[in-house]
Amino acid sequence: MAVTPKRRTRERIVEVGLRLFNDFGEPNVTTSLIAAELGISPGNLYYHFRNKEEIVTALFVAFEEEMASLLLESQRGRPAVEDVWLQIRGLFDLIWRYQFLYRDLNDILSRNRTVELQFKRILQLSVRAAMTACDALIAAGEMQASRIERDALADNIVVVASYWMSYEYVRNPRERLSEIAGRRGAFQVLALAGPYLRGRSRELFEKLAEKYLAD
Amino acid sequence: MAVTPKRRTRERIVEVGLRLFNDFGEPNVTTSLIAAELGISPGNLYYHFRNKEEIVTALFVAFEEEMASLLLESQRGRPAVEDVWLQIRGLFDLIWRYQFLYRDLNDILSRNRTVELQFKRILQLSVRAAMTACDALIAAGEMQASRIERDALADNIVVVASYWMSYEYVRNPRERLSEIAGRRGAFQVLALAGPYLRGRSRELFEKLAEKYLAD
Repeated sequence: MAVTPKRRTRERIVEVGLRLFNDFGEPNVTTSLIAAELGISPGNLYYHFRNKEEIVTALFVAFEEEMASLLLESQRGRPAVEDVWLQIRGLFDLIWRYQFLYRDLNDILSRNRTVELQFKRILQLSVRAAMTACDALIAAGEMQASRIERDALADNIVVVASYWMSYEYVRNPRERLSEIAGRRGAFQVLALAGPYLRGRSRELFEKLAEKYLAD
Repeated sequence: MAVTPKRRTRERIVEVGLRLFNDFGEPNVTTSLIAAELGISPGNLYYHFRNKEEIVTALFVAFEEEMASLLLESQRGRPAVEDVWLQIRGLFDLIWRYQFLYRDLNDILSRNRTVELQFKRILQLSVRAAMTACDALIAAGEMQASRIERDALADNIVVVASYWMSYEYVRNPRERLSEIAGRRGAFQVLALAGPYLRGRSRELFEKLAEKYLAD
């Protein structure tokens, strides 16, 4: 498919919007700033997006697609803890790229009905993915946890994964989030499952912990 | 000390401000709304607080004092897991009463420098309190965790405690947070420590889990 100039402008607005939202926080970025950054007129921007919410929604749809495909990976086959680790790292890469969503989550949700409904679905999907991964590890004898423990674990995995970046931000509000923050978050999520792991998965977890701390 | 009418008005502004912030979210409440709710003139309100940020700051100072005294309790003597549980419940009661702070945390931090600096201190104090409690349980033979595990645990305790209410809100954005959400949060925090508990503390944890699920 040939990329028409019109389509290209739309893509560029979304790209630049994402960068500015991440750098300055979504509440602090106006459509005028996005247009100025792109060197286009506000009228040209409005031709593609009537307001900032539509840009946020477009970004959210792209985010949601990536998130869903990442979460559904865990549904396929029996995951070993290495796969779980790669999945968590992938999750934090995604959160890192769309960090504005997580930093101002409740604020964005209160204004954007589409994001609100879809984010709720993403959380449900995330809890289910965490449970599926736990069940597979339990079936393989690589995890030992009662149903109560597993239920609590699945929710805690989703809370730490969803809010770690926010926690990093609150701890150092004047600093830009670094990618190291994402790596720390991935380790924190894996550490939630750590004490329940057995056998080869437990050994792998300990190796990952050593490697993580040595880096 | 006699309560003068002036002092009483100041207190009432803070009380009503807290209630409205909790009910509608701090970004959606204006000083005019607070004055109207109290049946006083905006001028009377401004005599006590020049703007909304000053009301937020006054509320935050009260919150911070309660939080600090709650966290410092763990520094005294050897906590048994019952004391840890009561402390977590106390923490969630406090978060429940000041839920507006947690629901719009990053938004409030980005606008209020006093809250920003003090909240960072509260998080540091919280991590230290979690570590102190873990160390005391380890010293008493009631917990078994490596240094790496304990460090990861302390941060995860603070993340789940700080963001659980936010997670509940995102899961059901159209519903008012119930006190049950706070109880669930307290259990989720205790469940983080669960797999590391040994002996009497582990037995108590299992009893609490049963009781929690039966309620």
